[in-house]
Amino acid sequence: MNRIEESPLYRIANARSIAYYGASNRVETMGSMVLTSILDAGFEGEIYPIHPKEKEVQGIKAYAEPGDLPEIPDLVIMVLPTGIVCQALEKCGKSGIKHAIVVSGGFKEVGGEGIELERQLLDISKKYGIRIVGPNCLGIVNNHHKLNSTPMFIEGPPGYIGLISQSGSFVAQTFNYLATQGLGFSTAISVGNETDIDMVDCLEYLAECPHTKVIALYIEGIKRGRAFIEAAKKVSTHKPIVAFYVGGSEAGRKAAFSHTGSLSGPDQLYDAAFRQAGIIRVHTVVELFDCCWTLGSLPKSKGRNVVIQTHSGGPGASAADACSRSGLVLPTLSDETLEALKPILPHTASSSNPVDLTFTQDQSSFFKDVPGVLMKDKSLDYLLVYLLAPEFSVKKRLMSMGMSDIEVDEMMKDMAGKAAHKLRKLVDSSGKPIVCFTYHDPHNFMIKQMIENGIPVFQDASRAVRAIKAVADYSEMNLK
Amino acid sequence: MNRIEESPLYRIANARSIAYYGASNRVETMGSMVLTSILDAGFEGEIYPIHPKEKEVQGIKAYAEPGDLPEIPDLVIMVLPTGIVCQALEKCGKSGIKHAIVVSGGFKEVGGEGIELERQLLDISKKYGIRIVGPNCLGIVNNHHKLNSTPMFIEGPPGYIGLISQSGSFVAQTFNYLATQGLGFSTAISVGNETDIDMVDCLEYLAECPHTKVIALYIEGIKRGRAFIEAAKKVSTHKPIVAFYVGGSEAGRKAAFSHTGSLSGPDQLYDAAFRQAGIIRVHTVVELFDCCWTLGSLPKSKGRNVVIQTHSGGPGASAADACSRSGLVLPTLSDETLEALKPILPHTASSSNPVDLTFTQDQSSFFKDVPGVLMKDKSLDYLLVYLLAPEFSVKKRLMSMGMSDIEVDEMMKDMAGKAAHKLRKLVDSSGKPIVCFTYHDPHNFMIKQMIENGIPVFQDASRAVRAIKAVADYSEMNLK
Repeated sequence: MNRIEESPLYRIANARSIAYYGASNRVETMGSMVLTSILDAGFEGEIYPIHPKEKEVQGIKAYAEPGDLPEIPDLVIMVLPTGIVCQALEKCGKSGIKHAIVVSGGFKEVGGEGIELERQLLDISKKYGIRIVGPNCLGIVNNHHKLNSTPMFIEGPPGYIGLISQSGSFVAQTFNYLATQGLGFSTAISVGNETDIDMVDCLEYLAECPHTKVIALYIEGIKRGRAFIEAAKKVSTHKPIVAFYVGGSEAGRKAAFSHTGSLSGPDQLYDAAFRQAGIIRVHTVVELFDCCWTLGSLPKSKGRNVVIQTHSGGPGASAADACSRSGLVLPTLSDETLEALKPILPHTASSSNPVDLTFTQDQSSFFKDVPGVLMKDKSLDYLLVYLLAPEFSVKKRLMSMGMSDIEVDEMMKDMAGKAAHKLRKLVDSSGKPIVCFTYHDPHNFMIKQMIENGIPVFQDASRAVRAIKAVADYSEMNLK
Repeated sequence: MNRIEESPLYRIANARSIAYYGASNRVETMGSMVLTSILDAGFEGEIYPIHPKEKEVQGIKAYAEPGDLPEIPDLVIMVLPTGIVCQALEKCGKSGIKHAIVVSGGFKEVGGEGIELERQLLDISKKYGIRIVGPNCLGIVNNHHKLNSTPMFIEGPPGYIGLISQSGSFVAQTFNYLATQGLGFSTAISVGNETDIDMVDCLEYLAECPHTKVIALYIEGIKRGRAFIEAAKKVSTHKPIVAFYVGGSEAGRKAAFSHTGSLSGPDQLYDAAFRQAGIIRVHTVVELFDCCWTLGSLPKSKGRNVVIQTHSGGPGASAADACSRSGLVLPTLSDETLEALKPILPHTASSSNPVDLTFTQDQSSFFKDVPGVLMKDKSLDYLLVYLLAPEFSVKKRLMSMGMSDIEVDEMMKDMAGKAAHKLRKLVDSSGKPIVCFTYHDPHNFMIKQMIENGIPVFQDASRAVRAIKAVADYSEMNLK
């Protein structure tokens, strides 16, 4: 595949018109919910509900059969009882539809008759040349095309993470999680049972997707191992891939089998495959998106030198400990740096790395002067900043001085914005990344402003360090 | 020590009156901030600001010397420039004060003259029999005595976590973090340089503190190793101890030394000591408080059997994987359980462990019927539930049907409350714990209600599993 248009996914993820099976005027069914998600996303093409009896479904003109539609739509989405999926697909095939998302479950993953039903589904798709995502999936979220075939409404703006997931949950149930951190999907694909289109096809598609800067994988078991490694190898040279694989442990393997009927392999096998393919492996959902954050937003660099800036010892020491355990290095600062720090640090401060300003309320030393000096040190690859943003205390103190709630909020937002801009300027002028960690709520003004200014903020040093390490590991594996 | 009143910390953490050095009418200094924290906490005893010139400090009658006070206060708190601390302590000693919190830094931790200054401080304290917390610390937060000597205001209600920390930050800068999760400190002690009162004294105090159900330690290096192990051994038989030790790695060791001048030891040494003392070791701040949550709120049990309930495969498989990797076991459900599940699970569901309900909107099957059956299974020690709480989507859907913002919020809060009560009832009737995981915001109605009903909710399966494992490990080490 050389052009994105050649991908079987292209007309699915970028469908211009959709035939829709499974919605009715009873709003609480899964089928109706998915239709409202498509509408809520603001899908701009035509939607054709297909319903045996209703003339209108949720205010949209409905049709009895796919053959009745005024055009051949690019895509059909099916949220139907298992037993009638094949028959519906047959009709779609006859009417010339070439792409389908089959959300319905009850196929291979339930065993028994389900296996036979899935074989029938595949036979029909081959007979008519229909490319299928699913069955037993939530389909596709293409934030840049206003397409969302999951039962959840999209939260937050489109982002740069491309997700390929053998679980629909990690597509539809992470919108809130990502939005809270200023992240979002470019395109997310719930592949389901992969009866036709599989992870390899998705990988090739996202490799060419211009909105996708990093690819996240949730894997229970890979069907076409050799093809997967070959595809990933090609992609990872220009686009990072991060994988969360759960099939390597005994309980993970069993759970994966009963979920999607995947046959998973031992950890060592997957570790070797990931290494060969230049893929970063993670072990939790949180790590998956944390590493996507840094890999998708920071410049790539083989460097492993982290300078830590803090205003208190504990967070500094815990970040240092996490770096050491992850194979990141705390370089000694140069004599020039130490000399330049002298006049701007309080006497209780420590200028070794971690640089500990101790108690200071001086915003310019914390957000400009000190980091300004540190970012110039040649040994620095990353500046890791412990961020104190005591919104509750500051707000209460200011209000006790007679300021109103709104005045305080505006003042704090303004202060946070200025602090974030200062750090952002240092990133731009040095070309080196700043990453923060904190224990505050992500709804905090300071955290929000940092994130909006492209500075990742993680809850806990260990998460920040893991995400920095991903960039160093990726660069080492894939950059020449 | 047999009675809590015998602890040198008792009259510090439960001071009935405080002499205060370092506050002025300039509100932005550290000294003034700490005084406002004490006032904000609602401290109920007398406060006597000591100031060379002012007649009043922040509206409170001030005194020039400790000898001028109308009584001998239980405690003196000092937030003074390093150079005048010794002289002030001498005056306090002469006037009969027997307990001090020295917040000021610039002693042993900065080396050079600081070491000599700290020796002087200790000499004075011995001469007058003054017991000291600090120097270079943030002192004490006793939420049950409305005492807070840190520069941050307390957030949230008192809790059951006793913290002993060689970093002031982890005392004062985690209020928001804990409150968001429905947690809080009983008493938190920032020990600073431990020139007099040290971790061992604090451990003995918290062992007897009736509000403390679990003890958290942040350690850079332990001074009295043998005494620490002996004390911890005694405590851990009736109160769990969780320790985050950062001095075991190269960078952690260096950072710890420049922070508090601690001499730390290799990981293996600390691992052995912790094991001997029945202490659970963790590696991040997040883990520290996660394990305190389960250890402080769940019944102790040596069992390692986890039954997972989910409505979608990915979260189930990732939780299964995390259990397997942590040495927790996913038992096979009994025939009775499987029989009882049959009529209440949809046909697409999986009744092996993880029990996957797949798509269901039936609140009673998710929060009552299915967990009700599972909790009765003899092989279950913990029920781990994946919690979907799609507030954003549900709210938007309900509002599109014409409900107002307030009506929707009330309805959702009500639904969440009912769901949480159902799970709570199952916990009470079975005596076995339910733990949840989710990817939603902790401000979400459902998450809040679960937490308020005593059901811990963790962001990510891995965190829930780590925290469950802590209970099993603690029980195995310390229960006969």
